[in-house]
Amino acid sequence: MEELVGLREGSSGNPVTLRELWSPCPRIQRGIRDGLKWLKQKLFHMGEDWHLLMTLGVLMALISYAMSFAVGSVVQAHNWLYQEIGDSHLLRYISWTVYPMALTSFSSGFSQSITPSSGGSGIPELKTILSGVVLEDYLDIKNFGAKVVGLTCTLACESTVFLGKVGPFVHLSAMIAAYLSLVRTKAVRESENPKANKTKQKEMLVAGAAVGVATVFGAPFSGVLFSVEVLASHYTVWDYWRCFFASTCGAFMFRLLAVFNNEQETITSLFKTSFRVDVPFDLPEIFFFVVLGAICGILSCAYLFCQRIFLGFTRTNRFISKLLATSKPVYTALVTLILASITYPPGMGRFMASRLSMKELLDSLIDSNSWMLITRNSSPPWPAKPDPQNLWFEWYHPQFTVLGTLAFFLVMKFWMLILATTIPMPAGYFMPVFIYGAAIGRLFGEALSVAFPEGIMAGGVTYPIIPGGYALAGAAAFSGAVTHTISTAMLAFEMTGQILHALPVLMAVLVANAIAQSCQASFYDGTIIVKKLPYLPWIRGRNISSEGVIVEHFMNCAITTLAKDTPLDEVVKVVTSTDVAEYSLVESTESQILVGVVRRAQLVQALQAESPSWAPGHQQCLQDILAGGCPMEPMTLQLSPETSLQQAHHLFELMNLQSLFVTLRGRAVGFVSWVELEKAISNLTNPPAPK
Amino acid sequence: MEELVGLREGSSGNPVTLRELWSPCPRIQRGIRDGLKWLKQKLFHMGEDWHLLMTLGVLMALISYAMSFAVGSVVQAHNWLYQEIGDSHLLRYISWTVYPMALTSFSSGFSQSITPSSGGSGIPELKTILSGVVLEDYLDIKNFGAKVVGLTCTLACESTVFLGKVGPFVHLSAMIAAYLSLVRTKAVRESENPKANKTKQKEMLVAGAAVGVATVFGAPFSGVLFSVEVLASHYTVWDYWRCFFASTCGAFMFRLLAVFNNEQETITSLFKTSFRVDVPFDLPEIFFFVVLGAICGILSCAYLFCQRIFLGFTRTNRFISKLLATSKPVYTALVTLILASITYPPGMGRFMASRLSMKELLDSLIDSNSWMLITRNSSPPWPAKPDPQNLWFEWYHPQFTVLGTLAFFLVMKFWMLILATTIPMPAGYFMPVFIYGAAIGRLFGEALSVAFPEGIMAGGVTYPIIPGGYALAGAAAFSGAVTHTISTAMLAFEMTGQILHALPVLMAVLVANAIAQSCQASFYDGTIIVKKLPYLPWIRGRNISSEGVIVEHFMNCAITTLAKDTPLDEVVKVVTSTDVAEYSLVESTESQILVGVVRRAQLVQALQAESPSWAPGHQQCLQDILAGGCPMEPMTLQLSPETSLQQAHHLFELMNLQSLFVTLRGRAVGFVSWVELEKAISNLTNPPAPK
Repeated sequence: MEELVGLREGSSGNPVTLRELWSPCPRIQRGIRDGLKWLKQKLFHMGEDWHLLMTLGVLMALISYAMSFAVGSVVQAHNWLYQEIGDSHLLRYISWTVYPMALTSFSSGFSQSITPSSGGSGIPELKTILSGVVLEDYLDIKNFGAKVVGLTCTLACESTVFLGKVGPFVHLSAMIAAYLSLVRTKAVRESENPKANKTKQKEMLVAGAAVGVATVFGAPFSGVLFSVEVLASHYTVWDYWRCFFASTCGAFMFRLLAVFNNEQETITSLFKTSFRVDVPFDLPEIFFFVVLGAICGILSCAYLFCQRIFLGFTRTNRFISKLLATSKPVYTALVTLILASITYPPGMGRFMASRLSMKELLDSLIDSNSWMLITRNSSPPWPAKPDPQNLWFEWYHPQFTVLGTLAFFLVMKFWMLILATTIPMPAGYFMPVFIYGAAIGRLFGEALSVAFPEGIMAGGVTYPIIPGGYALAGAAAFSGAVTHTISTAMLAFEMTGQILHALPVLMAVLVANAIAQSCQASFYDGTIIVKKLPYLPWIRGRNISSEGVIVEHFMNCAITTLAKDTPLDEVVKVVTSTDVAEYSLVESTESQILVGVVRRAQLVQALQAESPSWAPGHQQCLQDILAGGCPMEPMTLQLSPETSLQQAHHLFELMNLQSLFVTLRGRAVGFVSWVELEKAISNLTNPPAPK
Repeated sequence: MEELVGLREGSSGNPVTLRELWSPCPRIQRGIRDGLKWLKQKLFHMGEDWHLLMTLGVLMALISYAMSFAVGSVVQAHNWLYQEIGDSHLLRYISWTVYPMALTSFSSGFSQSITPSSGGSGIPELKTILSGVVLEDYLDIKNFGAKVVGLTCTLACESTVFLGKVGPFVHLSAMIAAYLSLVRTKAVRESENPKANKTKQKEMLVAGAAVGVATVFGAPFSGVLFSVEVLASHYTVWDYWRCFFASTCGAFMFRLLAVFNNEQETITSLFKTSFRVDVPFDLPEIFFFVVLGAICGILSCAYLFCQRIFLGFTRTNRFISKLLATSKPVYTALVTLILASITYPPGMGRFMASRLSMKELLDSLIDSNSWMLITRNSSPPWPAKPDPQNLWFEWYHPQFTVLGTLAFFLVMKFWMLILATTIPMPAGYFMPVFIYGAAIGRLFGEALSVAFPEGIMAGGVTYPIIPGGYALAGAAAFSGAVTHTISTAMLAFEMTGQILHALPVLMAVLVANAIAQSCQASFYDGTIIVKKLPYLPWIRGRNISSEGVIVEHFMNCAITTLAKDTPLDEVVKVVTSTDVAEYSLVESTESQILVGVVRRAQLVQALQAESPSWAPGHQQCLQDILAGGCPMEPMTLQLSPETSLQQAHHLFELMNLQSLFVTLRGRAVGFVSWVELEKAISNLTNPPAPK
């Protein structure tokens, strides 16, 4: 654009500039200029933003792929170092522990020094933003670098710290979406309507979240569904289509890059499985899938409970909270030292397949063979380094067998994962939970294949039980229960490229969700509660008791109204004595008929501008200031005392409102904000109300 | 329940009844009674209705399976008759045509005689109901039998009339859902709140729609997504979870019955494919998938356009409209005769695989082999009856080759399908469209496999192109474009049990949708428009011009207000001269402050009760009648003249509103209903506004 401006100046009679010398064909130039103008108008003027969605998808795919690539290189370097450093246990131990310690401390220190809000996953904050709260700077593009660099370092520690990338990617994607919608707003200067821009921005953020999930797994369907389930309480079909478009672009680009980089022959799924197609499972196995779902549900409750308790502990314990407040990198390094020491391969790591990366862990767990049946007669060796063809050798131990190592993995990772979530650095918590669930399912499946070694009979042929199917169901069920979502089932199919287990997996997920949702708040909701972010609780469909509650019962009657005929000195008194963002403006002190809203900031400004002319004789009133230019916003929506709680809740949710005034026959009688709604809802559900 | 009441009466001191003689253990009885009471309370009191959802799913699965079974038997009988009737062409022709004629005339006559609203798919009407309009009796359970019997007859004609079962199943499922929610309402007498019951009913209807789709295809995911996309403009995550639960129950039961009936070894997908797993498609093929999507999009526009034109023609043409109005079975028989004559196998049916049933058509089209490559050197025979192992033989003709028959099929079915949709009988239009799309894709795929006979190279091995993959993409893209949905892609994967083509199919569907949505209203919206059902148009996200429009610009100022101090004779005058359902009640004629709403019916009733006491001396006014018991509904929600069009539209959509009053400073100044909104929206989009 700058250049274009320069050209225009140059060609309009000014002395010939260097630029003009470079441009011998003014006609072509004008053509290009007009073309660009036309393009800009076409792209932005009609409110179309498909191209922005596409840009968003492609950009995130590039970032996701580049990050995977960088992480791969760092991990490879670490593996090389660990292999080449010699046989001395001390040296090996140091190389195993110091490397992740350095990475995580850097990740934590670097990202926290740039922006304090870059830690954690970012999904809880985004959820709050999407429900209408403005979190200052949270989506600022300048945090982008911190989060990207921090996350890369976190991921480079692989299964040692056992953290993933989904959450931060949703955050990153939302940042880019916010930035793109800012670009759009700047391009479309004619529509200065701030409300429409806000709507547009929200649409972009929703798409951004979907793209974030889709570009991590290359899974457009579950990207959209997961982001909707996690982030919103309701959504429009319009948003859903836009999300699909954006996340398809993202997922396609992400997988395309893998093909271009010769990693794959063609576009396929990320964690390809090869389950038997003819009879993947027998009918009675459905029962075991449901049992697995129940187990995952119960374990997820235990996990969520312990996680919340421990998070609370780190905040109340004087030593830890001091450490976390003053020197985050030290805390990070200490925790990483513990985690890395436990996973040291010649030590305890031998029993928990700690040499595998996150991807390899999942790949090995959804393997289609039954390890117990294979290892009954032969015992595979423990190779010097993981064998890419037989990753599951890592899970085998001659004494403990596969069942022992899986159980040990589950026990250890349970508290290690909880410990890891307290590290203040950019990290996702979905992937570890998914893998943990896969391990639960694998253990269950292997136990079943031992219990029924003869397998299943169908059409005269016997087929062995596929423990990999149980691993898939466990992963979907456990991650679904922890996040209170169902689309994890879809994710499992999209990630593996096989949808044979559709019904059993879905049933396991439903059972796990039923248990988890009735006992615990979801991982993200729990974080929102712990972080004390604003949060509008859910009225559960079952709450029949909510039906009689109307706004009159819970509205806040203590409103500060300013009448148009209020004398100015009284206005000043009110403004100085109260601290609300906006005042309701009424017609007159007597009638109290609501006419609009005045923002405090603008009122103060107008008062300051007015003050010199205060003449003691003429009693000025608010009316004069309003006439003098202090803007007043008209009322667009108001509640009445008879509105039901559910209706009000619906309104707040749909319209992303923060507060509404209540009028009775035109008179302002109170207001309702999130605080009042929250109180009213919690009064309904005296027992702890999950999600 | 009746029996329980009888028992209670018997045991409370009355003479010993027969019932009491049958009940020797009063203690056990009391126990059972208390248990039942407790169960009833548990089941209904807390507002829980998971058991209802499960019942819904299981019931619909049973009906769906029973219907498939009945249809299968009828079709088998027809096939047997056709085979056994001898070689005389006349006899064969008569048996081929009379059978479907009899079935369709019966279907049309029987269902129309019981309920005139049983024709067609039912999805457009359900969409209208879900947006808040009350269509009398449309969901009455007494229509159920008519629709079931009619649909069974329709389906028994198989590919001759080429109609499906999805739409009516959604309608049937909604009927059962409405009935179940009625049962629930009766059981929960304590909560008489009609609004809550309405919400509950809507929740059940949404779940019902999902179950309808899920039990037809055994596909829970796409059942939920498709019903949401087709029926709603937005939905809550709460509904989405309930839908998932219900449709999983339904799909599971549906597939379970197939296993119990020894049709299948275990629970698998309905149209199992066996595409090559290693390299299902090469990267450059993505381009062809996108081209296929564009072709499907363009064809869908042509189809929708012709369909609407022809529907209009049947309504305006004097002969046809008279026939349709007076003797529907005759019209049905005539149309069926045309369709059956064309599909007569030894005649033109030879070139359009007319001996295959609907299921077999789809099964053959998604076959994984390339027919063109197979038939290059050998020509398969035309068997006496379709060979279940090689269904595709039906598509082969020595002269025309496969390409010729596919093209002929597409050309003929184009207008035959349009003709079939005008038959007034219960029938679904999704499956034919899906199969039509599969044929488009197959033709495209076969053409590609001829153009590139050497196939694709990957890792040193050559693989042939899979035309079945294109058939799948074509089916999803064409049906998606016709119905304006994306979840048809998901449906294609769930139905076939393979998700290898996830990205290409999704891209084809997106392209097809982009074209179709920008040119034509969807099939269901088109039907709503043609049937003149109430319909709230969509404000497209792109419509920036809508941002400046506020309620003041389009509200209807001609409201009839009744003041509390209006004399009764004037009230009577107003009531007799106007014909609105409700009047806005204002504080006084002077102030015009809105206080509530009075229903016309109740006001008339109150006026009639009051009339005898009219004393000429005392001037009674409305206030007295209100005090005398005429109920007044308080205002719960009101618009203000400054509310934007988009906000108002949002409100109407979310809250399922019919009309709202507009107040300015408490005074009633107008009202907005669907009519005003529709007008305002159509003023925005002067060119034809699709969906």
